[in-house]
Amino acid sequence: MQSSSINPVKDSSDGELFPYEQLLSFTTDIFKKIGCPAKDAATAATALLSADLRGIDSHGVARLIGYVRLWEAGRANTTPAIRIIHETPSTAVVDGDGGLGLVVAPFAMQVAIEKARSVGTGWVSVQHSNHFGIAGYHALKAVEEDMIGIAMTNASALVAPTFSLERMLGTNPICVAVPSGDEPPFVADLATTTAANGKLEILQRKGQEAPLGWIQDKDGNPSTDPHALKTGGALLPLGGDREHGSHKGYALGAVVDIFSAVLSGANYGPWVPPFPAYIPMPVGMPGKGIGHFFGAMRIDGFIDPDSFKRQIDDYIRVFRATKPAPGTNGPLIPGDPEREAEKLRREKGVPLIMPILEDLRDISRKTGIPFD
Amino acid sequence: MQSSSINPVKDSSDGELFPYEQLLSFTTDIFKKIGCPAKDAATAATALLSADLRGIDSHGVARLIGYVRLWEAGRANTTPAIRIIHETPSTAVVDGDGGLGLVVAPFAMQVAIEKARSVGTGWVSVQHSNHFGIAGYHALKAVEEDMIGIAMTNASALVAPTFSLERMLGTNPICVAVPSGDEPPFVADLATTTAANGKLEILQRKGQEAPLGWIQDKDGNPSTDPHALKTGGALLPLGGDREHGSHKGYALGAVVDIFSAVLSGANYGPWVPPFPAYIPMPVGMPGKGIGHFFGAMRIDGFIDPDSFKRQIDDYIRVFRATKPAPGTNGPLIPGDPEREAEKLRREKGVPLIMPILEDLRDISRKTGIPFD
Repeated sequence: MQSSSINPVKDSSDGELFPYEQLLSFTTDIFKKIGCPAKDAATAATALLSADLRGIDSHGVARLIGYVRLWEAGRANTTPAIRIIHETPSTAVVDGDGGLGLVVAPFAMQVAIEKARSVGTGWVSVQHSNHFGIAGYHALKAVEEDMIGIAMTNASALVAPTFSLERMLGTNPICVAVPSGDEPPFVADLATTTAANGKLEILQRKGQEAPLGWIQDKDGNPSTDPHALKTGGALLPLGGDREHGSHKGYALGAVVDIFSAVLSGANYGPWVPPFPAYIPMPVGMPGKGIGHFFGAMRIDGFIDPDSFKRQIDDYIRVFRATKPAPGTNGPLIPGDPEREAEKLRREKGVPLIMPILEDLRDISRKTGIPFD
Repeated sequence: MQSSSINPVKDSSDGELFPYEQLLSFTTDIFKKIGCPAKDAATAATALLSADLRGIDSHGVARLIGYVRLWEAGRANTTPAIRIIHETPSTAVVDGDGGLGLVVAPFAMQVAIEKARSVGTGWVSVQHSNHFGIAGYHALKAVEEDMIGIAMTNASALVAPTFSLERMLGTNPICVAVPSGDEPPFVADLATTTAANGKLEILQRKGQEAPLGWIQDKDGNPSTDPHALKTGGALLPLGGDREHGSHKGYALGAVVDIFSAVLSGANYGPWVPPFPAYIPMPVGMPGKGIGHFFGAMRIDGFIDPDSFKRQIDDYIRVFRATKPAPGTNGPLIPGDPEREAEKLRREKGVPLIMPILEDLRDISRKTGIPFD
C-alpha cells in the first residue's frame, strides 16, 4: 500500500491505494460469509469491483457494507433459486428470488445472450432482484460475444420528474455497449439524471456547492446544497429544467422503469426498495424487489461483423479527431474515461478514502476475515 | 377556414386553420404527382401529417416542399424496391432503395412487428432511406398490436458533441411507445438534444433569443442567437454542457446513429445526407442514405398483457397525481401534449403560418393540384 496521487476519473477524491486482487479476495470472502455459494460470491465480487476498476467509486466496494446490511435485515437472499418464469424465443422474465443483483443480473444477461445466439436478439426483464452494481459491467458481457449489450435498472426514488415536488424515479441508468475492432468498445453508460448521487457525495465530502440544475430543495426550488436530498429535496432528470429538456430525462427514466419493472412484475416509481437497510420498505408495493432489463443483439443478425467493427473503429476515430472546443481536448468517446481508470487502477491499485476503509475494517473485525 | 386562436403545444405560433382532411388529400395528391404509387402516397401523407396533428409543426406539411425538392434533385426515389437484405428470426436489415422515409419506415416497422409476432421481438435497421417524419408515428404502430414500439433515426449533423467545435451528429430522436389500458399510451418521443431545430425556427420567427444551453456559436462559445446555426454554430446535446450532463445526450445521439446506420450500412455522423436539397451531399459518404432503427416487443413475451396494461394505467395515474412543483400543474405524462394537440386539431383544424401556406400554394400552382 502506498499513498495515492492518482485522480480517479469519476471521483477526484484521493485515497489510500489497494491492489485490486486484495479487494477482490476480501469481497469474495465476505459474500461467502453471508451465505453465498462460492461461485456466486466470486460472481458478485467481480461485478461489484468492476465499478472500482472503472472509476465509479460510489458503486463499488464502498457499497459492500450496504449489501451486508441488506442481508442482515433479511432483504437479500444469498441462496436464491433464480429462474426463468416466462419466455419466448427472444424474450424472458427472470425471477431473482430476492437474490443479490450482482448475481441475478449475470444470470439474466446470460439468458439474453443465449437467446440472441439462437434467434438474433435476446431481451430479459427481471423481477425480485436487488442492486446490480454498474450497468456497464453487464452490458460488456454481450460485447465479449460479438453482440451489442444493453443493461438498465430501476432504483429507489430520488428524482423529481419535471414539474414535480416529489421523488418518483430512481437515477435509472442505461448502458449500451458496442463491439469494435482495434479500438476499445463504445460504452455509453449513463444515469438518466443530470448528475448521479455519487457526485453529490463527493461535493458533500469536499464541502462544495452543486451547480444549479442538479437538485431541487423540498419546496421544488433550484438548490446548490449537496445535502438537499437529506431534507426532502430531489435529484433532477437529465436536462435539469423544462427549458433545458428535463422532460426528456424524465421520460427516459420512466422508460427504464417500465422496461425493468412493469414488464417483469417488479416494483416501480416510488415503490422501488431502498438500498440502505435502515430506510423502511415502501408501503403498498405493487411488485417484487427491484427490476432490471437486459438486451443482447448479435451483430451478424444485421451486418457482417468484421465490416461493422471496422466502421465502429472509423466512427470512434472520426469523433476523436474532431476539432476541440476552446479550452478542451475535444470530444471524449463514451467508455474512454472508465477504460483509462481501469488501466491505471489495475496497475497502481484502487484508491479508498478513509470512511470506506473504516467500513471495510469494521466488516473485517465483525466477520474475522482479514482485510489488511 | 377561420382565424386561429388555438395554441399548438409544441409551436405557439398562430396560423390559419385548415381541416386535416384537406391537408391529407392535398399531400397525398402531391406525393402521387411526384411519382409515388397511390398506396405509397397515402402512406407517406398519413405519416407526414401525423406531425401536424400531434403539434410537431416543424416535421409536418411544412416539410412537404422539402420532400418535393429532394425528388426534383434526384435525391428521393418515389418508386423504390424496398426489401429485406439480411435477417434472422428476430432481426432484419431493410434496404430503402432511396425511397421516402415516410414509406420505407412503415415497411420496416411492419417487418419488426411480424418478427415480434413470431419470436417475441423484432428489430430492424434500415439503410438507404430518407427522412421519416416523426418517430412517434412509427412507434405507435406497434402499440396497435399490443407491443412496445421503438423508433429512432439519424439525421444530418447539426449537433456538436461535448467539447467539440464541429457538428458531428443529427438531432437523432428516440421514441418509445407503451400500450396502456384505459389511459392513453405512454409515448416518450425526444430528440437527443436540449432543443430540436424546430424550436429555434420558432424563436427566429418571433425575433426572440434562445436560452443558454441550446446552441453554441462557430467558436464553440455559448450563444443565445437562434440564427447561430447559419453562421457555423451548432445545437447542443441534451444536458447543454458537460457540467449538466451533455456527454449523456451526446452518447445517446451516438447510440441512435450506430443502431440506425452502422448496423444497417447507412451513413452516419457528419456524412448523413441533408434534408434541404440545396445543401450539397457530404463528400466521402461511407454508406447509403439515412438510417433508421425500429423495435417491437410483444407484451405477452414478458407478462400477461391485461395485467401489464392495468399497471401502466396505475403508473400514469400515480405520476399524474404527483404533488406539483410551485407554479406548475405537476408532471406531464410523456405523450399527453401530443394527444391534446391531436384532439384539438382533428376537431378545429391544423394551424398553418404564412410562410408554410405560401410554400403550399406555390406547390399547388406548379403542379396544378388545387390547395384551397
